[in-house]
Amino acid sequence: MKQPTAIYLDHAATSWPKPAGVGEAMLDILNGPSANSGRGSYGMALKAGRTLFQTRMLLARLFHIENPNDIVFTSNTTEALNLAIKGCLKPGDHVIATMVEHNSVRRPLEYLKRTRGISVDYIDIGPRGDIDLTNLRKTFRPETRLVVCSHSSNLLGSILPVKEIARMAHEHEALMLVDAAQTAGGYPIDVRELGVDLMAFPGHKGLLGPQGTGGLYIHPDVDLEPLMHGGTGSQSEALEMPTVRPDRYEAGTLNTVGIAGLGAGVSEVLERGVDEIYRHEWALTQHLMEGLGGTKGLHLLGPEPGQPRTGIVAFTVQGLDASEVAFQLDRKYGIAVRAGYHCTPLGHMTAGTVQGGAVRASVGYTTTYGDADALITAIRIIASGST
Amino acid sequence: MKQPTAIYLDHAATSWPKPAGVGEAMLDILNGPSANSGRGSYGMALKAGRTLFQTRMLLARLFHIENPNDIVFTSNTTEALNLAIKGCLKPGDHVIATMVEHNSVRRPLEYLKRTRGISVDYIDIGPRGDIDLTNLRKTFRPETRLVVCSHSSNLLGSILPVKEIARMAHEHEALMLVDAAQTAGGYPIDVRELGVDLMAFPGHKGLLGPQGTGGLYIHPDVDLEPLMHGGTGSQSEALEMPTVRPDRYEAGTLNTVGIAGLGAGVSEVLERGVDEIYRHEWALTQHLMEGLGGTKGLHLLGPEPGQPRTGIVAFTVQGLDASEVAFQLDRKYGIAVRAGYHCTPLGHMTAGTVQGGAVRASVGYTTTYGDADALITAIRIIASGST
Repeated sequence: MKQPTAIYLDHAATSWPKPAGVGEAMLDILNGPSANSGRGSYGMALKAGRTLFQTRMLLARLFHIENPNDIVFTSNTTEALNLAIKGCLKPGDHVIATMVEHNSVRRPLEYLKRTRGISVDYIDIGPRGDIDLTNLRKTFRPETRLVVCSHSSNLLGSILPVKEIARMAHEHEALMLVDAAQTAGGYPIDVRELGVDLMAFPGHKGLLGPQGTGGLYIHPDVDLEPLMHGGTGSQSEALEMPTVRPDRYEAGTLNTVGIAGLGAGVSEVLERGVDEIYRHEWALTQHLMEGLGGTKGLHLLGPEPGQPRTGIVAFTVQGLDASEVAFQLDRKYGIAVRAGYHCTPLGHMTAGTVQGGAVRASVGYTTTYGDADALITAIRIIASGST
Repeated sequence: MKQPTAIYLDHAATSWPKPAGVGEAMLDILNGPSANSGRGSYGMALKAGRTLFQTRMLLARLFHIENPNDIVFTSNTTEALNLAIKGCLKPGDHVIATMVEHNSVRRPLEYLKRTRGISVDYIDIGPRGDIDLTNLRKTFRPETRLVVCSHSSNLLGSILPVKEIARMAHEHEALMLVDAAQTAGGYPIDVRELGVDLMAFPGHKGLLGPQGTGGLYIHPDVDLEPLMHGGTGSQSEALEMPTVRPDRYEAGTLNTVGIAGLGAGVSEVLERGVDEIYRHEWALTQHLMEGLGGTKGLHLLGPEPGQPRTGIVAFTVQGLDASEVAFQLDRKYGIAVRAGYHCTPLGHMTAGTVQGGAVRASVGYTTTYGDADALITAIRIIASGST
C-alpha cells in the first residue's frame, strides 16, 4: 500500500503548501473582477490593473527596486531568462556563464550559438560551489556583452558572489544577468547593492506564489528586444511594441489570477522577513547535513557545513541510483525529494554526479526539524540496506 | 455614486463569470499536489502531470485533435502566435495575412520584416467581414510559406472561411495558421475538417478557463523552432530542446494551477456543447442588432443580420467617441463593454472606425436576453442625448 506524501522536501522545485492567502487572492480575482487589465475602462478592468500594480509594488519592495514598472511579469523563470538572453545578444557577442547554470540558461545560449553566432565560455565552479574570480577575469574579451550567473546553484545550494561578478562585468562594459530561481524570497536580494542589470525570478518557489508566475527585473538603462510581440492595450496603432514599461515586454493577456496569488505570496515573505526565512532554512540545512553526514556511503554535495547556502542539501548514496533512493523515500516513507539530473548537466559534471544523478532534498519556510529528522532516519535505513 | 458593474458584455476580452468548477480545480492543485510536473517521481508530481494530460485530452476532444501531445500550453494566445510565426519563418519567406488580424499577429510579422527580411501582404477584408478569395489566390508567390488568418475578427465578429483558405494555402505549399482567439469554445472547430496546420487559442475566453492559459495546436508533420529554450525534465543532458512533444515547446515550469482550471472550463464547454453555445450567442447577437439597429446615429459593424458571427456586436454612435459611450455605460448603467481600438489598427481601417474607435459589446454563455435589453435601452438613451 502506497501512503500519501506526508513530508515535502522539494521546495527548490516548487514551494508547498502555499500560504492560505494565495488561493484566496486568486479566487477573488477569478470570480470577482477578472476582466482584462488595460483592455477596458470599466470598473472591473481597472481593479485588475490595480492588482497587477500591487504585486509589482510588493516585488519592488522585496528586491529594493526603485520603479515597479522595471519589473516585467513572465510565466516562469525560463521565459524571463529567454527574454533577457535573446533580447540583448547580437551576432558576434561573447557571453560568460558558469558550469552550474540551469538548462534555462544553457539552452538559450546554445541556441544563439547555433543561430546568431554568439560564443560562450562556461566558467568552472569547484565541487563546493566556489568560483575562481581570477580565472573569471581572464575570460573577458572586448566583445563580452553579457555575464550570466545563478545566484545559487540548484544542485549544490552554493551562493555565488554576484556583487563581485557584477562589478567585474561592468568594468568590462558587459551586462550582468542573475538567475534568482533559488534565492528570490529565500535569500536577501537588493538589486542596487548587487549591481545587477537583469534578474530573472520564479513566482512559485521562494516567493510562495502559484505556478505560472515569474518575472524579470530590467535596469532602467537597459533596453531589450521583446520576446513576445503583440497587443498591449497601449499605442495599438504602432507597428512596433511600445517603449513604455512594463507594456513593452508584456504582450497579450497577463496571468492576472496567478499574479494576484503571487502578491499574496510575496506579502507573506515580507511579513515573515527574508532574513528570518533564510536563517530558518539555513539552520535546517545544517541540521540535515549533520544528521546525514555520518551515514556510510553517503556523499554530501555543495558547501561545507557552516558556509552560506540556500535550502538545498543534495547527496549521493554509494551503490544506489538517486532515483531508487527517491522512489524508496516516496513509497516507504512518504517523503518527497527530487532525484535525477535537475536540468543542469554541467552542474553534474562539476559535482561529479554524471553517473546516477543526485538526490536533492530542499527545505522551505514551513519545513520543521521533525521533517528533517524523518529524512535522516529514512536515509540511514536505505543506505544501510544498500551496502 | 458609482454602481458596481452588474452586466458583463465583454466576453470577447475574457469570459466572466467562470464556471464554479474552475476555481475549485485550481485550488485543488494549488493546495493539493502542486509539485512540479515531470520534475519528480513522487506521487504529488505524478498527479500534477496527470492534470496536464487530462486538460490536453479535453482540448483534443473539443478540437478533434488525434494526439493530445500535439497541443502545447502557452500563457496566452499571443505567446502561441509568436511561437507559430517566429518558429516557422526564415529569411526571404513571404506571408499572407488579413486586414483584420490582431496586433498579436501583426506585430510579430512586422518584427520579422525588420529583423529576418520576410515580406507580408495583408489581404483586404470588406466592411462586413467578407474576403475576396480570388484576390487572395493572386497574392501567393513561390516563396509564400505561411497564411495567417483570424477565425473570427475581434472587431467585426465575422467568421472567415478558414477551410477554403487552408486548402488554397496547401495548394501553394504554405502552412495555415489560424488565430482562434474569438472562436475556441464558442464556435465549432475540427482541425482535420478545417485542414489547419497551426491553431492558437486562448484559455480564458470561450474555453472558460483562467487568464494565464492558452495553447497552440501543431500538426504532427510541422516542426517549429521553439520560442523558449530551457529545462523540460526530459533529455536534460542534451544541448538542444528535445524532439518529443509536448516537451519540445514547453520549457520551464508550466502553469499547472491555471491548466487545471482550464480543464474545468473545457469540461463545461463540452457538457453544454459548442453547437449549443454558438446557437445561444448567435441568437443574442441578432437580438442586439435588431434592438440597436433603429437607433438614430448608431452604425453597426460586421456581418448583416442573419449571417454567421461570433458573439461580438460592435458599433459607433455619431457624435460620441467610443470611449465616452463605454464610460457612460459603465458609470450610469453598470454595463461593461469595451471601447477603443481593440489592438487591431488595420481592422479599424477596414471598418472605417480609425477616428473615435468602436464600442464592442460581446456576449457569452451566461449572457441573458435581459442583459441584452439593458444595453439596448441604455444605448438608445445615450445616443438620443448625443444628437
